[in-house]
Amino acid sequence: MIISMSPQATKEQIEHVCEKIRSFGYIAHPIYGEERVVIGAVGDGREKDRVISVMESVPGVESVIPILQPFKLVGRELKKEDTIIKMDGFTIGADQFVVMAGPCSVETREQLLETAQRVKAAGAKILRGGAFKPRTSPYDFQGLEEEGLKLLAEAREKTGLKIITEIISPENIDLVSEYTDIFQVGARNMQNFALLKRLGKVTKPVMLKRGMMSTLKECLMSAEYIVSQGNANVILCERGIRTFETYTRNTLDISAVPALKQLSHLPVIVDPSHGTGKRSLITPVAKAAVAVGSDGLMVEVHPNPEEAFSDGQQSLLPEEFEEMMREVKKYLVVEGKRL
Amino acid sequence: MIISMSPQATKEQIEHVCEKIRSFGYIAHPIYGEERVVIGAVGDGREKDRVISVMESVPGVESVIPILQPFKLVGRELKKEDTIIKMDGFTIGADQFVVMAGPCSVETREQLLETAQRVKAAGAKILRGGAFKPRTSPYDFQGLEEEGLKLLAEAREKTGLKIITEIISPENIDLVSEYTDIFQVGARNMQNFALLKRLGKVTKPVMLKRGMMSTLKECLMSAEYIVSQGNANVILCERGIRTFETYTRNTLDISAVPALKQLSHLPVIVDPSHGTGKRSLITPVAKAAVAVGSDGLMVEVHPNPEEAFSDGQQSLLPEEFEEMMREVKKYLVVEGKRL
Amino acid sequence: MIISMSPQATKEQIEHVCEKIRSFGYIAHPIYGEERVVIGAVGDGREKDRVISVMESVPGVESVIPILQPFKLVGRELKKEDTIIKMDGFTIGADQFVVMAGPCSVETREQLLETAQRVKAAGAKILRGGAFKPRTSPYDFQGLEEEGLKLLAEAREKTGLKIITEIISPENIDLVSEYTDIFQVGARNMQNFALLKRLGKVTKPVMLKRGMMSTLKECLMSAEYIVSQGNANVILCERGIRTFETYTRNTLDISAVPALKQLSHLPVIVDPSHGTGKRSLITPVAKAAVAVGSDGLMVEVHPNPEEAFSDGQQSLLPEEFEEMMREVKKYLVVEGKRL
Amino acid sequence: MIISMSPQATKEQIEHVCEKIRSFGYIAHPIYGEERVVIGAVGDGREKDRVISVMESVPGVESVIPILQPFKLVGRELKKEDTIIKMDGFTIGADQFVVMAGPCSVETREQLLETAQRVKAAGAKILRGGAFKPRTSPYDFQGLEEEGLKLLAEAREKTGLKIITEIISPENIDLVSEYTDIFQVGARNMQNFALLKRLGKVTKPVMLKRGMMSTLKECLMSAEYIVSQGNANVILCERGIRTFETYTRNTLDISAVPALKQLSHLPVIVDPSHGTGKRSLITPVAKAAVAVGSDGLMVEVHPNPEEAFSDGQQSLLPEEFEEMMREVKKYLVVEGKRL
Repeated sequence: MIISMSPQATKEQIEHVCEKIRSFGYIAHPIYGEERVVIGAVGDGREKDRVISVMESVPGVESVIPILQPFKLVGRELKKEDTIIKMDGFTIGADQFVVMAGPCSVETREQLLETAQRVKAAGAKILRGGAFKPRTSPYDFQGLEEEGLKLLAEAREKTGLKIITEIISPENIDLVSEYTDIFQVGARNMQNFALLKRLGKVTKPVMLKRGMMSTLKECLMSAEYIVSQGNANVILCERGIRTFETYTRNTLDISAVPALKQLSHLPVIVDPSHGTGKRSLITPVAKAAVAVGSDGLMVEVHPNPEEAFSDGQQSLLPEEFEEMMREVKKYLVVEGKRL
Repeated sequence: MIISMSPQATKEQIEHVCEKIRSFGYIAHPIYGEERVVIGAVGDGREKDRVISVMESVPGVESVIPILQPFKLVGRELKKEDTIIKMDGFTIGADQFVVMAGPCSVETREQLLETAQRVKAAGAKILRGGAFKPRTSPYDFQGLEEEGLKLLAEAREKTGLKIITEIISPENIDLVSEYTDIFQVGARNMQNFALLKRLGKVTKPVMLKRGMMSTLKECLMSAEYIVSQGNANVILCERGIRTFETYTRNTLDISAVPALKQLSHLPVIVDPSHGTGKRSLITPVAKAAVAVGSDGLMVEVHPNPEEAFSDGQQSLLPEEFEEMMREVKKYLVVEGKRL
Repeated sequence: MIISMSPQATKEQIEHVCEKIRSFGYIAHPIYGEERVVIGAVGDGREKDRVISVMESVPGVESVIPILQPFKLVGRELKKEDTIIKMDGFTIGADQFVVMAGPCSVETREQLLETAQRVKAAGAKILRGGAFKPRTSPYDFQGLEEEGLKLLAEAREKTGLKIITEIISPENIDLVSEYTDIFQVGARNMQNFALLKRLGKVTKPVMLKRGMMSTLKECLMSAEYIVSQGNANVILCERGIRTFETYTRNTLDISAVPALKQLSHLPVIVDPSHGTGKRSLITPVAKAAVAVGSDGLMVEVHPNPEEAFSDGQQSLLPEEFEEMMREVKKYLVVEGKRL
Repeated sequence: MIISMSPQATKEQIEHVCEKIRSFGYIAHPIYGEERVVIGAVGDGREKDRVISVMESVPGVESVIPILQPFKLVGRELKKEDTIIKMDGFTIGADQFVVMAGPCSVETREQLLETAQRVKAAGAKILRGGAFKPRTSPYDFQGLEEEGLKLLAEAREKTGLKIITEIISPENIDLVSEYTDIFQVGARNMQNFALLKRLGKVTKPVMLKRGMMSTLKECLMSAEYIVSQGNANVILCERGIRTFETYTRNTLDISAVPALKQLSHLPVIVDPSHGTGKRSLITPVAKAAVAVGSDGLMVEVHPNPEEAFSDGQQSLLPEEFEEMMREVKKYLVVEGKRL
């Protein structure tokens, strides 16, 4: 790390900082500039993150600048090759483009089965559907819970699709694990560290959605929580961030996809439904996801959005989804990828 | 709610929307403008939030504008008088200004007891200290857990201060409840709804920190989660939001205090430590909190910030805290409030 | 517009609001709900924008919600067909995808001519280059001014490329107009209304970059300034907005392209150089721009980014630009567009 | 500056960077870490800002971290004592707290004179009023222009108040200069560098409002534009920034006041009218401004907000302004400041 001293720092303060650096097992390299001193701290010392925090509190220090990325296991520096998650019959993260589709919430047997058959026929490999719903209002529909999980399992059986569903509390991990193929961590729980740690102990893949307030580095640090506990099968998902713009529900950060893939070896997918919040923007953004190298999509599809219990305005009709898939396929051909 | 039809909406679509409105038990009031039709939906119909979501999906609808505040129990509309939380020997929310102070993390017995005695002497009523720490990195110090809770209880016994500590998972509620006087929900968990629901069942007060990317209305909806489960003793805390500005750690939204107090009857306090992230800005912002009508402060104090395990750069030294309290008291005199 | 009264509003206040509405030439439609009254104001009254502002100040009014889009001339409601700008030999806005490329700043004759020849050969139609540079610091290079304009004109003569260059003050319009083919308004000047009004009087096209702090509606209102003064040839440009994310220089709002094209008939192009600030992200985002229906690109190209006077880290080398163009062309084939 | 090389950087790349540093007149200090090399560039070399930009483009460089503040004349490093602007009969920036009040727009003679007399009586020293209005919509009231300036001058004559009015284009500087005592640069023009440069040549003070999406450093760089051209009398104004929160018009960044005063010697004032956009929040925030050390306030006052041509909902009535001033004075007593 680099420690920049204030222009008013005294000789004693500079020496104190150097000693402090050494006390943590690093070597101190002071550089004397015209107006101030900056000190490089080099080495394989202990507790890098804590040292940065400590150094910021030492008298005379103006700022501390970390040089190394704080994530290790999910970064490209130690593992160069892409992580490829093997599912039964397909992969996430190689030259395959995986589409996860389905309703926002599992509502009824008919709704789910109809949707599952339609998205399967159009090329989706994974059925999405929320059984535990994190809703802003306590008065909104909170999900069918285990009943919803059972319907997802039935849809899997009927269609051969794999299923992904959201987990909102560590208490439900065992229950959800009985049914799901992939755990989904929603944007609001991206920094629910108790949940992440527990998901690091399961063997099924986890899809981690970027928080609407989270930087790319924070997203990678949350993935690091899961991987550092032993579960290497993490999929990242860009689903839009919160900005001042209100025309769209969120602002989908399209650059995040190639940026995450440069920083990390994990697969990255895009959710254009939440990323835009508007049905008419989903297909263009889905195509853009292919263009920037995404490994797949998560899209909300509902046979009757008017009757949806949640998020109807950002759900495609099955026939709109089929149209989206036709468009996406043209771009996959260009990219040499397959569904 | 008001439903604004698109200028291209057909007569059939308009009639369909009106029927839909009626099917939910509302009365439809179409208004025919020059360029478009807007429809008022009035009444005491069912499932207000879901209806809004459904209506946004109906063909021909351009937007749906809710008119009522989505929060009920925490709003001023149904309960005009301020909520006053009675602690043993003092109150939160009346003409008393409550200061919560202490280290970011509970680290050692000496650190905690020394800090407790110093902040008590300076006028604090509540000792803060984290035993379970939500940290961005899995490699950062995660807290002493139960050992930390025991030290907090010991400090309470020695000083008579009440204690507040953070709860990061529903699984720990029983454990933390054995020790703490007030539960703290951190900014990252403001929308951890599983946690909020469980805290609605406890009898101790809950201080809910505004999420760093949460609107005031979302913050109030999260409070509504707790209150609607039966726990009316909720304290709101403004602790800064995330913006593009990087000079400060967060941007403390000072207007949020009077705004929340206008919208809600719940007490509101300010955390200038997280709100600024810089020691030199804490005292000015603490004074500003009094100026805007805050019911108290939460401030980080550490006897030796250089040795802090977390957040040293935003902790006051005990003597700086004493100085802050002297400044704050002058303003409390003007406001006719007491510590 | 819809006026929502506060739940405490008196009968007199409601009546006063209705009178006020009528005094501006609108018809008032009060709707009596369970908890409050909302009033629709319908008609072709005067001064819509001022009326909204006035109504927000009337006692008893809680909020005023406009129903009509504030932009008229640039919106799709009055003009459904796309605006197509005819340049000499090509068009902006139809089935043609126009690439504007060149250095951030015009620096030297050699730099500019070499770049112009390379980008022309690779398929660009327009040469970009700044002669007046808006720089955050007064100590940064401010541009070659008229000397730079002359070099652009020379490059045009040598290559047949059209030129686009930035205008930063109304005082320079006559001078810049002698040389340029298209005026560029930079993000920092998107709401420099004095400049916009003057550009509404020129006959050459104007490319208006979205401000880094501007909503889509504000961007369209700024375009409306130009068009309402008589210049209908406006091109919009998405170049990234400012968010909390710091990994990229800005956050390119990819959904803005289809959203702007739905709201407006004006052509929309994308600037992936400013939108990302990182050379390695330019090509993926350029492809995404095709995917979402952009009418073109503006890209920074520099033969020797190390020697650039500004923005070297977001400039492509000519050979990287050629590679980007090859990728872009594959997508244009899919879309049935041509360069 | 500190140059952090990528972990993959070759020996040749590192040597090339060191040579490059030397070619600009700096001394290179490479520090060899475990995983990468960082290089300190020290000295009084040329063109600091350009060098940073160049270095970011050199192969093998991952990032460049400036160590010095980019502003010089407005910073505390070279001038420690506060800038005090001497007006006729009072000062801006010492132990005096200056209140600027008046209508958003100059509308009529009666409106302006009545407001002037009322705010003068309540303790204001400066009358504000817009004659040239930067409005989002071309269809909104754009100001009375010279007629408005004349009314301001008349109000000055009648009351002895000084006047401040907004300048929106370099073309109007001579005209506005005939009338005003202080030039105001609005938030939307904070980076209108052509305007700033011209205001650096006038002798009257300039109040520079922070842009709604500008960092503190950018705001100081814009002040540097004015001061570096010869006009040292610059006042900074915090007026709220744009964030995701929509309940308030902007988010007033209260920490910005003490932060700016630590970084710079220039006086800083607060605009709670634009900062909140809501009448009921103005007085609390005005008091908070005193609490954080602001040198004054700018507040909108209108005798009949319902009739205001702009911004009525954020204007105080004269009697509300008087009440605000009574509250503010109590805090000024505590701070030992006078009106």
